[in-house]
Amino acid sequence: MIVVYTDFGFGGPYVGQMKAVLAARAPGVPVIDLMHDAPAFGPRPAAYLLGALADWLPAGAVVLGVVDPGVGTERRPVVVRAAGRRYVGPDNGLFAIVARRAGAAEAWRIDWRPPALSATFHGRDLFAPVAAMLATGAAPPGEALPPESVARPDWPDDLAEIVYIDDYGNAMTGLRAAALGGETRIAVAGRTLERARTFGDRPPGTPFWYGNSIGLAEVAVAQGSAAALLGLAPGAPVAIA
Amino acid sequence: MIVVYTDFGFGGPYVGQMKAVLAARAPGVPVIDLMHDAPAFGPRPAAYLLGALADWLPAGAVVLGVVDPGVGTERRPVVVRAAGRRYVGPDNGLFAIVARRAGAAEAWRIDWRPPALSATFHGRDLFAPVAAMLATGAAPPGEALPPESVARPDWPDDLAEIVYIDDYGNAMTGLRAAALGGETRIAVAGRTLERARTFGDRPPGTPFWYGNSIGLAEVAVAQGSAAALLGLAPGAPVAIA
Amino acid sequence: MIVVYTDFGFGGPYVGQMKAVLAARAPGVPVIDLMHDAPAFGPRPAAYLLGALADWLPAGAVVLGVVDPGVGTERRPVVVRAAGRRYVGPDNGLFAIVARRAGAAEAWRIDWRPPALSATFHGRDLFAPVAAMLATGAAPPGEALPPESVARPDWPDDLAEIVYIDDYGNAMTGLRAAALGGETRIAVAGRTLERARTFGDRPPGTPFWYGNSIGLAEVAVAQGSAAALLGLAPGAPVAIA
Repeated sequence: MIVVYTDFGFGGPYVGQMKAVLAARAPGVPVIDLMHDAPAFGPRPAAYLLGALADWLPAGAVVLGVVDPGVGTERRPVVVRAAGRRYVGPDNGLFAIVARRAGAAEAWRIDWRPPALSATFHGRDLFAPVAAMLATGAAPPGEALPPESVARPDWPDDLAEIVYIDDYGNAMTGLRAAALGGETRIAVAGRTLERARTFGDRPPGTPFWYGNSIGLAEVAVAQGSAAALLGLAPGAPVAIA
Repeated sequence: MIVVYTDFGFGGPYVGQMKAVLAARAPGVPVIDLMHDAPAFGPRPAAYLLGALADWLPAGAVVLGVVDPGVGTERRPVVVRAAGRRYVGPDNGLFAIVARRAGAAEAWRIDWRPPALSATFHGRDLFAPVAAMLATGAAPPGEALPPESVARPDWPDDLAEIVYIDDYGNAMTGLRAAALGGETRIAVAGRTLERARTFGDRPPGTPFWYGNSIGLAEVAVAQGSAAALLGLAPGAPVAIA
Repeated sequence: MIVVYTDFGFGGPYVGQMKAVLAARAPGVPVIDLMHDAPAFGPRPAAYLLGALADWLPAGAVVLGVVDPGVGTERRPVVVRAAGRRYVGPDNGLFAIVARRAGAAEAWRIDWRPPALSATFHGRDLFAPVAAMLATGAAPPGEALPPESVARPDWPDDLAEIVYIDDYGNAMTGLRAAALGGETRIAVAGRTLERARTFGDRPPGTPFWYGNSIGLAEVAVAQGSAAALLGLAPGAPVAIA
């Protein structure tokens, strides 16, 4: 299975062209669109969100991850293996959190290059072909790297920021809920929020936080938009109170 | 074939996570995204829209339907069999219309539970695995129910409301067009509209209604947005005039 | 492989119904969503955009192209074969550019009709079944046409207009970049823009043009929206300066 995680948006020919490459080069391999609205141009929040989502992906999945504001510059293309899943994309921190949380990650620099490599669309020209290679049994086409070189040891274990706001206005943080007790309060936008089990536990209009379906602390409000109510945007800081 | 019908929207990881479960548990079974903008939080309008769409789905299809504002509360998870198709989702009326319109529907309560069931994402944790079971040949994992228990006998045969507004501003009603004569007028938003065969039959700017491609009466205006012109939103009442 | 190119948008049941037909009639054939936001109601700009995209599609692909403002009127349904790919859709110019750029195109009128043909959704009822026929080995179901009859000899070789604006605000033209020298300037919206190799080559806020990943001249601005900055919309004229 190839799982695609990008900030391309759904509009335009970008996702489709990448998937045409996958279908041609890895025939019969299912391709899943995990997200195409990953934090735009933000490898760091996208890394914490991917860290949470990864636990729900099947063992053996190849994750084609393209949040790549540096396309066309000198950042390395890499393959990372962590917890039985392989990740293909730019070495800009996007795979740092999955690598760090796995006991024994491995990493490779991608040395393979296509006959024609566009300056702006490595997702189609470089990363999709490599994802197809891995999904059809090939080894990472390049030299092994020390895994710590992709793991960003200077980044925190959890990210105390809003990393994603969904269509309902619920605001995911980069904090794992399992590490936070039932009495933990989260401070955000000048408010201090209590934990709820789910939306039905709080009256409409009252913001709260809860452990969401991918294990992250999420700021929400029943029958409303937490992002609108609290003025939240991706990158807004949160704190454990 | 598994057909997915939700109100999740296209943003976020929700559809992707559900489809990763389907791909892992029902390998080789094609998965079709029928709609992810079904009437939000509205099992009743969503049921009439699904009732119209169902006729166009292949016999044998498994429909994974998740419009589930009551997730985490006591509503039952069910499987419904109607007209050769099977439906998996919450027992909140979403499958009432397909069940009623089929001569002999069958229903089952889903008694199976996954090892871990999140409070807020039964689509991924409960309904998708059951849809995969059915699509790979298993029987509904639970006790048979009287089919009338899912069929909402108190709901009307057709719903005299706007149930869906598409990206062009065309407004679908819950009324089946085949039951309405060519002279039937539809009253909506203080206007009385005549029937047209198609868009080319009316001058630009003049609202009309017609039998749309899924057999529902739809309010439209050539080269314009009926929703904007008439101030329509989902739930707006219509009447046969 | 069947590649789908439409202006339906992602909302609503339109794409899903068409793909359910493809899955039922061409089992096992991969289906790729290339774009569903092709220039709306615009076969002409959509033709130049498809002309650029086609080069990136695998040989043997069947392209189901539906940008069809004339649905329900007398325009012919056609199959076009060009450069090893087959195209199925309305004969309204949508395939004119792929046909003209191929050395030896072939064309057929589609004489097959389904048992039931809706007035407004030939994509589902007519074109999708024919695409499935071709993808499963059948010949075009109709009479051969002179290929020049689909090729619109009165249209220019390149279209000096904005044909598509992506989610980032980058504005694609219908001009092929390979034919333009490095010193070529493009005039648009009262500005004269110089060519850059990629986004990093120009300071933020300064509009430029570059050869994009599908070979078209594209107007862009680093870290900003060229469409917003220059007031561009699809159809805006450009000129080589």
